Amino acid sequence: MVHKVVTIGEMMGRLSPPGNLRFEQANSFQIDYGGGEFNVSASLSNYGIPTDFITAIPNNPLGNAALKVIRSFGIGDEHILRQGDRLGLYFLEHGAAGRNSNVIYDRANSSMSQIQPRTINWEIVFKDATWFHWSGITPALSQSAADVCKEAVEIASKMGLTISTDLNYRSKLWKYGKAPKQVMPDLLKYSHVILADVDTTLFMLGHQKIDPNYLDENEVKKVFQKVKNLLPNLTSIGMTYRHSVNASFQKIGGILYTDEQLYRTTIKDADPVIDRVGTGDAFMAGLLYGLLEHADDPQTAIDFATGACVLKHTIYGDINRVTKEEVFQFIHSDGSAKVSR
Amino acid sequence: MVHKVVTIGEMMGRLSPPGNLRFEQANSFQIDYGGGEFNVSASLSNYGIPTDFITAIPNNPLGNAALKVIRSFGIGDEHILRQGDRLGLYFLEHGAAGRNSNVIYDRANSSMSQIQPRTINWEIVFKDATWFHWSGITPALSQSAADVCKEAVEIASKMGLTISTDLNYRSKLWKYGKAPKQVMPDLLKYSHVILADVDTTLFMLGHQKIDPNYLDENEVKKVFQKVKNLLPNLTSIGMTYRHSVNASFQKIGGILYTDEQLYRTTIKDADPVIDRVGTGDAFMAGLLYGLLEHADDPQTAIDFATGACVLKHTIYGDINRVTKEEVFQFIHSDGSAKVSR
Amino acid sequence: MVHKVVTIGEMMGRLSPPGNLRFEQANSFQIDYGGGEFNVSASLSNYGIPTDFITAIPNNPLGNAALKVIRSFGIGDEHILRQGDRLGLYFLEHGAAGRNSNVIYDRANSSMSQIQPRTINWEIVFKDATWFHWSGITPALSQSAADVCKEAVEIASKMGLTISTDLNYRSKLWKYGKAPKQVMPDLLKYSHVILADVDTTLFMLGHQKIDPNYLDENEVKKVFQKVKNLLPNLTSIGMTYRHSVNASFQKIGGILYTDEQLYRTTIKDADPVIDRVGTGDAFMAGLLYGLLEHADDPQTAIDFATGACVLKHTIYGDINRVTKEEVFQFIHSDGSAKVSR
Amino acid sequence: MVHKVVTIGEMMGRLSPPGNLRFEQANSFQIDYGGGEFNVSASLSNYGIPTDFITAIPNNPLGNAALKVIRSFGIGDEHILRQGDRLGLYFLEHGAAGRNSNVIYDRANSSMSQIQPRTINWEIVFKDATWFHWSGITPALSQSAADVCKEAVEIASKMGLTISTDLNYRSKLWKYGKAPKQVMPDLLKYSHVILADVDTTLFMLGHQKIDPNYLDENEVKKVFQKVKNLLPNLTSIGMTYRHSVNASFQKIGGILYTDEQLYRTTIKDADPVIDRVGTGDAFMAGLLYGLLEHADDPQTAIDFATGACVLKHTIYGDINRVTKEEVFQFIHSDGSAKVSR
Amino acid sequence: MVHKVVTIGEMMGRLSPPGNLRFEQANSFQIDYGGGEFNVSASLSNYGIPTDFITAIPNNPLGNAALKVIRSFGIGDEHILRQGDRLGLYFLEHGAAGRNSNVIYDRANSSMSQIQPRTINWEIVFKDATWFHWSGITPALSQSAADVCKEAVEIASKMGLTISTDLNYRSKLWKYGKAPKQVMPDLLKYSHVILADVDTTLFMLGHQKIDPNYLDENEVKKVFQKVKNLLPNLTSIGMTYRHSVNASFQKIGGILYTDEQLYRTTIKDADPVIDRVGTGDAFMAGLLYGLLEHADDPQTAIDFATGACVLKHTIYGDINRVTKEEVFQFIHSDGSAKVSR
Amino acid sequence: MVHKVVTIGEMMGRLSPPGNLRFEQANSFQIDYGGGEFNVSASLSNYGIPTDFITAIPNNPLGNAALKVIRSFGIGDEHILRQGDRLGLYFLEHGAAGRNSNVIYDRANSSMSQIQPRTINWEIVFKDATWFHWSGITPALSQSAADVCKEAVEIASKMGLTISTDLNYRSKLWKYGKAPKQVMPDLLKYSHVILADVDTTLFMLGHQKIDPNYLDENEVKKVFQKVKNLLPNLTSIGMTYRHSVNASFQKIGGILYTDEQLYRTTIKDADPVIDRVGTGDAFMAGLLYGLLEHADDPQTAIDFATGACVLKHTIYGDINRVTKEEVFQFIHSDGSAKVSR
Repeated sequence: MVHKVVTIGEMMGRLSPPGNLRFEQANSFQIDYGGGEFNVSASLSNYGIPTDFITAIPNNPLGNAALKVIRSFGIGDEHILRQGDRLGLYFLEHGAAGRNSNVIYDRANSSMSQIQPRTINWEIVFKDATWFHWSGITPALSQSAADVCKEAVEIASKMGLTISTDLNYRSKLWKYGKAPKQVMPDLLKYSHVILADVDTTLFMLGHQKIDPNYLDENEVKKVFQKVKNLLPNLTSIGMTYRHSVNASFQKIGGILYTDEQLYRTTIKDADPVIDRVGTGDAFMAGLLYGLLEHADDPQTAIDFATGACVLKHTIYGDINRVTKEEVFQFIHSDGSAKVSR
Repeated sequence: MVHKVVTIGEMMGRLSPPGNLRFEQANSFQIDYGGGEFNVSASLSNYGIPTDFITAIPNNPLGNAALKVIRSFGIGDEHILRQGDRLGLYFLEHGAAGRNSNVIYDRANSSMSQIQPRTINWEIVFKDATWFHWSGITPALSQSAADVCKEAVEIASKMGLTISTDLNYRSKLWKYGKAPKQVMPDLLKYSHVILADVDTTLFMLGHQKIDPNYLDENEVKKVFQKVKNLLPNLTSIGMTYRHSVNASFQKIGGILYTDEQLYRTTIKDADPVIDRVGTGDAFMAGLLYGLLEHADDPQTAIDFATGACVLKHTIYGDINRVTKEEVFQFIHSDGSAKVSR
Repeated sequence: MVHKVVTIGEMMGRLSPPGNLRFEQANSFQIDYGGGEFNVSASLSNYGIPTDFITAIPNNPLGNAALKVIRSFGIGDEHILRQGDRLGLYFLEHGAAGRNSNVIYDRANSSMSQIQPRTINWEIVFKDATWFHWSGITPALSQSAADVCKEAVEIASKMGLTISTDLNYRSKLWKYGKAPKQVMPDLLKYSHVILADVDTTLFMLGHQKIDPNYLDENEVKKVFQKVKNLLPNLTSIGMTYRHSVNASFQKIGGILYTDEQLYRTTIKDADPVIDRVGTGDAFMAGLLYGLLEHADDPQTAIDFATGACVLKHTIYGDINRVTKEEVFQFIHSDGSAKVSR
Repeated sequence: MVHKVVTIGEMMGRLSPPGNLRFEQANSFQIDYGGGEFNVSASLSNYGIPTDFITAIPNNPLGNAALKVIRSFGIGDEHILRQGDRLGLYFLEHGAAGRNSNVIYDRANSSMSQIQPRTINWEIVFKDATWFHWSGITPALSQSAADVCKEAVEIASKMGLTISTDLNYRSKLWKYGKAPKQVMPDLLKYSHVILADVDTTLFMLGHQKIDPNYLDENEVKKVFQKVKNLLPNLTSIGMTYRHSVNASFQKIGGILYTDEQLYRTTIKDADPVIDRVGTGDAFMAGLLYGLLEHADDPQTAIDFATGACVLKHTIYGDINRVTKEEVFQFIHSDGSAKVSR
Repeated sequence: MVHKVVTIGEMMGRLSPPGNLRFEQANSFQIDYGGGEFNVSASLSNYGIPTDFITAIPNNPLGNAALKVIRSFGIGDEHILRQGDRLGLYFLEHGAAGRNSNVIYDRANSSMSQIQPRTINWEIVFKDATWFHWSGITPALSQSAADVCKEAVEIASKMGLTISTDLNYRSKLWKYGKAPKQVMPDLLKYSHVILADVDTTLFMLGHQKIDPNYLDENEVKKVFQKVKNLLPNLTSIGMTYRHSVNASFQKIGGILYTDEQLYRTTIKDADPVIDRVGTGDAFMAGLLYGLLEHADDPQTAIDFATGACVLKHTIYGDINRVTKEEVFQFIHSDGSAKVSR
Repeated sequence: MVHKVVTIGEMMGRLSPPGNLRFEQANSFQIDYGGGEFNVSASLSNYGIPTDFITAIPNNPLGNAALKVIRSFGIGDEHILRQGDRLGLYFLEHGAAGRNSNVIYDRANSSMSQIQPRTINWEIVFKDATWFHWSGITPALSQSAADVCKEAVEIASKMGLTISTDLNYRSKLWKYGKAPKQVMPDLLKYSHVILADVDTTLFMLGHQKIDPNYLDENEVKKVFQKVKNLLPNLTSIGMTYRHSVNASFQKIGGILYTDEQLYRTTIKDADPVIDRVGTGDAFMAGLLYGLLEHADDPQTAIDFATGACVLKHTIYGDINRVTKEEVFQFIHSDGSAKVSR
């Protein structure tokens, strides 16, 4: 079966001092273009899955530059809106060892935050699509962006698409007067797949945190089942298990709960970390790929997601620039990563 | 006599592709910090004139970086406000030959545009100062920024400071619902020195353009006198005479009208142009220096201003990084610019 | 009417020392991707004309990188072949003043030179297309590449497409045992539009050079008519009139002969030259745009072509990264190229 | 209480191949400006402590560049001398793993080494100051520089300032005919706080090394007490405990002996090391900050010093570009250094 | 005794994205020049051993650039051929952690692969030489290159030179229709010293693999003896023992079998790895140096070889830019690599 | 006849901000190695003339880096001394248009200034040589360097070498207590060829300036003859005629007076100037080449010298990286410098 995945999200410019310099030391910033949901589309495209990206970018040269990046992956750009005041930006300082990376958001009043309902013809967007993916960032941008999400999930649901969501809670967003629990339940109820830890999900649904012990398999099963019960259409929950030794050394595992079964991976080291940003999106995209192409083999799905996530730590920028062959080679290897020549 | 000049203005981050690359080609942007009125302070500081800069910058690492640049010139930073949402940005693409440089402003909702009246104690700011300089950019940012200008010129006037203004009309600003003619007359009536061509001044004061022939000395005198008559405190008008052959080749002269006398310079070539931005500010600062230190020699004042402006075309960035000795050496030379060794 | 242009050509990696360094001084080479006919497609895409590009690139990461550039312009890549041994390369050293730029070709045995007839289904490729563009470089690569050109022009002609050709003679190619006059007449006979000076055309058709005086309008008309008589389908001949003052200063005009009328432009200066390579392709693309969108106004067509060519001299890389609005603005301006802000 | 710290030292230009290149591989050197005692002032300024820096730098553009860096931190530059022949330089090659970093000093005949007694009016310099900091580098430069140290400590002592000293023994200095033991005792007798290991102190005072076991708390107390007994004004001794696993991996702890009590920190990892240089100065500055602002809490003082030192390993250049909030966050964290967003 | 070593091999251009970027992310490639056997000559030259390098490079500016690198080491270039079509190239992407480095060879039809027998006068080349070194790469390039090897080893043998060989099996080469076992036995029979693991040697000689346990000293001795018995002139076998933890972390030991004795080193860590390429060549050169200058002390020879190899992991580029003093310092140290200042 | 030229001089490190940045703007400096007389050797080597370079450089990694550059040109390095305290440095800021380039010398106490007589065995150095070249810089460094020049010219003269001298007066040197006229006459009396304008020569010989009009051919002949009469062995005088329009635009001609005949070239434009430094050395080397290889054709000699000088303005760094073919192509061309492809 041929899949086609539609994603919606903000495309941002990312400005970052070279190497490990602090902001005040840089006389140039690296410029890259990306965004959580776009990163998912880019990965899917790398894995050979057709995908369309929905966003709004300004009609100026910075918007053109962002659009060129979108197109370069072969991602469908037909429905992208060229409107609004500005390209959202974020400034990223790369940490090292005991010093954390630091993000300064400068995305207020971006074109995407100004997107309005009834500007996108979702019936046409979803015509050949089988899957719709959105994340908790879009409804956090503005009321109108949340409204656009609403109309998208309603129509996607009606048209029979599978719906996936990365909950992606960012406390620095949600500034327009609503709390997640006022917005997210109405959106999440359509989701079939979510990526989140248990407590983020409970928080977004307006429930108490329960701080589960993820090393206790029975407890994990129980709490995942509890989450599943809160969302009527949910079939699968994915989660990254991450231990941050320091900014340069991360340990990563994956958990997939589906069909009331729990699938786990071994923990892999990412040391040194070249770029921490976008690793969650890499996991999300890996999970989508796994669920699409290995639907009957959840262990392969979660192994692929985790391998993609671990490899992303070695790739500069927001986007996981690896092929599916590279991910499979990695998950089947001992990690020795010998020179290929 | 010891002079001290206070300036007010916005400090921005400037992001620019290296060399002559277009925005979409760059994978890094040069980052510099500057702004029209700050550039004047920086030049004055380079010439040995004490100066204080008034602005508002956000309390984040980008604000810190901007502050470090301000301090590096030995400019007084005591009254700088650390507040507001963001550092104003602008993106600059350097043109060449027949392709123009292009600026994308991204300064809406900057800390400086959010500045409020009654936050700066102007009596203290102006205590040891003899001169106050502002430009037409600040009142173009927002109503509150215009109000801050108003209180500054009123108090400066009351305290007996000389007031200078670069009219600096930018059509892309003035977005908050007022036209220049509704705001500027009340501010400009306090100015003793302005930098502007005749028609910009008339436009800002709500009069008709007259398109004078600047090569006809009698006509120029007459129109400058006309401008002078409109502003009660005005004593001097400075103007750059610029012929843009193309983006890489500019011809520059200067005109000073003071004491009802006209002073002109020869026309000098700037070829090739390293950076066009900030050359007007360099002229303004040179004129201030000339009027402060060579008050009795208007020809030297306008020669210095013009020389500073021409040299600025050879300096990368917003700021005119030259000493007064370099400016004097240039205006006394034949322009041959032999290697000094 | 909606046009769609199909082009065929080689996509190469271009390796170039930074700035004006000589090869031996560089410890890095800029890498760009382009090629004469691709450059035409990229320009057309920038002007809003749909276009498909046909080529063969290797199935390795360098081929992927080249493909990403193709896609980034929104150019159709559906029929691109991923096969063969290597991506063609060329090394470019940028000259200055009296020192010429230098190209070292390293394109032998490239994927494109290995392309074979009957691998591309031209009926499908040309289904929605109205125009086919090829250049004299492709038949110069190898016998099989010349054969592919042959089958393309035959089918394009049969399907009623307009055919254009940039003669692009490169003496360092044509190494496979055939001279241009053995190959080109059979291909050029289908062309409706060619870009070439008179003597290159005569040479490729196996005739004697006549060295016309391009400043004598009557003589020019006569010789163009002579060329036209040699090619049965020809309707239009375009030509750049170029005076190379030195490597950093070029003077450019354009000539279009169509409907037995001669259209000329004024001569424009390109000073300084940022990148000389690809300026002929920029002219070709501008001419196509003009003939497509201003078919009834040959003067606008040739003005546009010439303006596009002059502007290309200010753009780094092979590709003319300008919009049609920028070209029109330039040809309607005095070239003063003031900062847009 | 408001503190003000005066430091004296040399400001140098540091020239360093990019990344891990060896000197012979570089076609550019990073240029940074710093110096042991200046680095202390810069840190203190970052922590909000007013500080004045005393040095001599040449009156040329390189001196100007160094001065701009000094000023950028808001450090008082009023008493800096602009005189002498040259800015001291050092060349730094960054090692990695088993290859050590390498320093080539090129600081002979620098402006600072040519400084003369009776050129600085110490009564004025120390007027508002509460603390004077110097290091063992200045008296190692030249007899006249040692003499300037002498007059400074005598006057500081007379005026009641607290005096601190980083012993900083560098065997490649001390070339002017005197051994440390001939110079240092007369200077150190005024110090209240020193930073040094036991044997360096004994060596500088002309005593035998005793090679203490720093892991034996009783022994450490005893030997520190022995050192204390040799210096009449001494109240506190700080020391970094460093284990160099290799050039890219350092383990760091801190020891403070004060009021006859010993305070230790846990050992923290710096892995990977971005820049090893200036980490001792970061410790010194952290210790001063701790003793100034947490005078009654020696454990916090030494924790802060150690945290500042560990974080400095992640900062490129000589200077510890961290805020006190960042140091406190680090010492109170588990070192996981998660992205802040 | 004065030694002089002659080596033969291909000199290539190496093009590599900066840092850890993937090919498609780079807008520049670092350019370095090197090649397995040249790297050996360069190391020997660094250690003070006179050496001549034999190769063929094209007579164009890229060949000139490669030649300048050869000369810069003081390597004899008198017999280098300037002929053929192109400089061999390879593209190298640096991996990190679990992502491997990737090499794309682009060396077909290089000048060196086109080298012909009877073009080099080996009697003259070997006149003052005592040692000849070649590797398994040259006979893998082409039949004619294998033939040149053949004539070289025959004459070297006749003239009494010691002959060493790095077996260097690369499966991506050997494309000209012969398998190693058809070519190598006739060449290897002259070798006195080889660098290879046991199974590579057996494979090249047409024998079955035996997969020895290198941790079992008796077994190792036995299998090395078996290899020795297959090659009539062999006296010494060197081998690197490498454990690749991941692309950024390698563990390295060395084994030397000579005079029927086995010499081993401790295992050393290379963490982080700056450049993995050329580390085998560094080992080979270190072994040659050891056998030349410490002929009577095999333990020092293998310690030196291993130390040189470990240090090479910290040096960017193909070439091991270390002195013999640095190698000895490293092998006699605890690896703490403290800053030298 | 086979020529071999020996030169003596200082090899320096040159540190230069990228592009047209001022010193204070740079966070890196380009590092290049060169020096007036070395630049002559490098050019001669590029033209195929064997050459040996005599200098003293420190025995440290910076000296090694300089040595690698010397060797890379195939210049004989057998007699280079590795001794002394430091590599001489100079800092170069590139001007543009009306802003001059600026040099800060930092070469005091360099290894070369510390060179001592009787350390170089000139009889061996000159054994196979036919020509000795020195410049006025070496005797300006120190008394001992002047003494070394003296012993060199005496022995060269005795051994029958042709001696050439570039007078190269630099007022910032000559700091050791002697004026040029006290030192130079004794050295210049051996010279057969000098490069200098008339007044520099007269000044160095202790005569009055006469400020000749170089456009009056008779006057020029007369004054050159006057100079010739002052130096007993002189046969040829070369001189560059330079008009500096500004830092980016130079006009260059050449004059050669030999056999009592005057040879002049046309004036050529260098616009834009990439690097002004080393253009005099390029002229000197071109003149030597011309006198060596075209001894019977003085017009070709001076044309070559001037062409080499003009081309040098397009080459970054001190060294004229052009071949003799390129110089001849340039002097025989119209300067149009079309792309070679």
